[in-house]
Amino acid sequence: MGVVNDAAPAEPQWIAVDWGTTNLRAWAMVGDQPLATAKSARGMGTLSREEFEPVLIETIGPWLGRGQALPVVACGMVGARQGWIEVPYVSLPSPPIDIAAMRSVETRNRLISVTIVHGLSQGDPPDVMRGEETQLAGLLALEPRFEGIVCLPGTHSKWVEIRRGRVEGFRTFLTGELFDLIARQSVLRHVVDDGSAPAGPDFEQALDEIAADPAGLTGQLFSIRAGALVAGLAPRAANDRLSGLLIGMEVEASRALWASGEVTLIGQAELCALYARAILHRGGRARAVDATGCTLSGLNAVRCALCGDFA
Amino acid sequence: MGVVNDAAPAEPQWIAVDWGTTNLRAWAMVGDQPLATAKSARGMGTLSREEFEPVLIETIGPWLGRGQALPVVACGMVGARQGWIEVPYVSLPSPPIDIAAMRSVETRNRLISVTIVHGLSQGDPPDVMRGEETQLAGLLALEPRFEGIVCLPGTHSKWVEIRRGRVEGFRTFLTGELFDLIARQSVLRHVVDDGSAPAGPDFEQALDEIAADPAGLTGQLFSIRAGALVAGLAPRAANDRLSGLLIGMEVEASRALWASGEVTLIGQAELCALYARAILHRGGRARAVDATGCTLSGLNAVRCALCGDFA
Repeated sequence: MGVVNDAAPAEPQWIAVDWGTTNLRAWAMVGDQPLATAKSARGMGTLSREEFEPVLIETIGPWLGRGQALPVVACGMVGARQGWIEVPYVSLPSPPIDIAAMRSVETRNRLISVTIVHGLSQGDPPDVMRGEETQLAGLLALEPRFEGIVCLPGTHSKWVEIRRGRVEGFRTFLTGELFDLIARQSVLRHVVDDGSAPAGPDFEQALDEIAADPAGLTGQLFSIRAGALVAGLAPRAANDRLSGLLIGMEVEASRALWASGEVTLIGQAELCALYARAILHRGGRARAVDATGCTLSGLNAVRCALCGDFA
Repeated sequence: MGVVNDAAPAEPQWIAVDWGTTNLRAWAMVGDQPLATAKSARGMGTLSREEFEPVLIETIGPWLGRGQALPVVACGMVGARQGWIEVPYVSLPSPPIDIAAMRSVETRNRLISVTIVHGLSQGDPPDVMRGEETQLAGLLALEPRFEGIVCLPGTHSKWVEIRRGRVEGFRTFLTGELFDLIARQSVLRHVVDDGSAPAGPDFEQALDEIAADPAGLTGQLFSIRAGALVAGLAPRAANDRLSGLLIGMEVEASRALWASGEVTLIGQAELCALYARAILHRGGRARAVDATGCTLSGLNAVRCALCGDFA
């Protein structure tokens, strides 16, 4: 892609931004390579409409200050209805990003020129994504011939089918959010140590149990509490079981997608390793690709298309 | 049972208490009939060990004041490890209540003489109950020849098999707690109106969908959110769907228990009606019995056994 990183200039060419519900990450970029990174806890969920611009300026301030407005390309919940501006969803089937559907933001200052990426929506069954489309575009920028199944584990995990450069369909699972609610706020909070990644064999055992009896989930959840009370189940083993039950449900529900080919995982490294372990244990194959690399390549693909630089 | 309610005396003979995690209910009793009732929000979860006695005295104070200590029989989380005193679980198989396993409490005042009921525990799979054993004892007091399956829906729903007057086994489901967490604290809180009992056909449709694809639960949960965003799913329909998915999971997991006979439901009336509707829709039969009646009959059975009054 365009610029390479030999003799990288000290001045950024553009700013990449991933602005989710709970935080904001920004990178000072030259081509698809980051020069510097910045982070803020001012996620979309914490901001009123007027606060987006000053928060962004404050976060990326050290990178600004030259004459020309610096291009900023942002993805994620910043484009939701409650975000900076609403960028409507693009309906499937579609390439992950559609340049015509981007929206630019009117800013009060002339230091930046901001473009926000749309999300994707599916009608039947109803589903939505916002942010992941950019990672999928990045995957296709890094591997232009990619076809197959992508899993993006997280708060709201997504399983996506990509054919001929287009997103054909996807399904979102509430797995990560449900794990947090159960581990931290349900009656299981007293018995689950959620501070560490699953390590023990209870994870695999739970994968098999939930595959054999998926309808029994809410029963198996309570048995973690009861196991701690009457059978000495330890907090780390309880955490392994809870992870195994919830990830196991998701992997089992997606069996038709991974039964015939390798799953490409994009997400936080520890979580991807856990999903890979689950998929492998249940008879599939998986590999992980770098999530930040996908985000930056996707945002860079938007920037290149916007400025006509398809190099 | 013992005393009948013709010419009921104005003075209670004993006090029945159901003391759960979040509240306390007490009845001034003559035989198995209540003369008066009292309620407090000082559940076990809000109290330190020293507070149980004054809170009870304050709640039932108007009924006290005579010379002889009034018997109090209490069931529920008041007997848990974090309760007034710990009354150990009785292991299955067992009759619902075992008089030898009750514990009496040393009180500072001489107005009351308190006995607390034990819970039941099961080793494999691990499970526990505390409070429901008294309702099961009450059901057997009201219907001495009862055999079959009892479902006690609630925060932690229980399905219990009773044979020859004994609890043979049971399974607890986190259904009610999970409903509350998802409807009030997850991303679905924006789209679910949880203020009313399910009324529409979305409830039955969700029962069928989850029975066909139980592993898809966390996917179907997110699709409620997405359905509201892109397909106009209304808040009450979203509530019906959420109820249908979670109750449907529990009913499906318990199919082997209800496939061959009627389910007896003990619980809050609206919730029992909803479970009956689900069981009926999925091909089973159910009836509901009065939950407070079961609690009082069960506590009265304890009182009778303690004082040797088996009439």
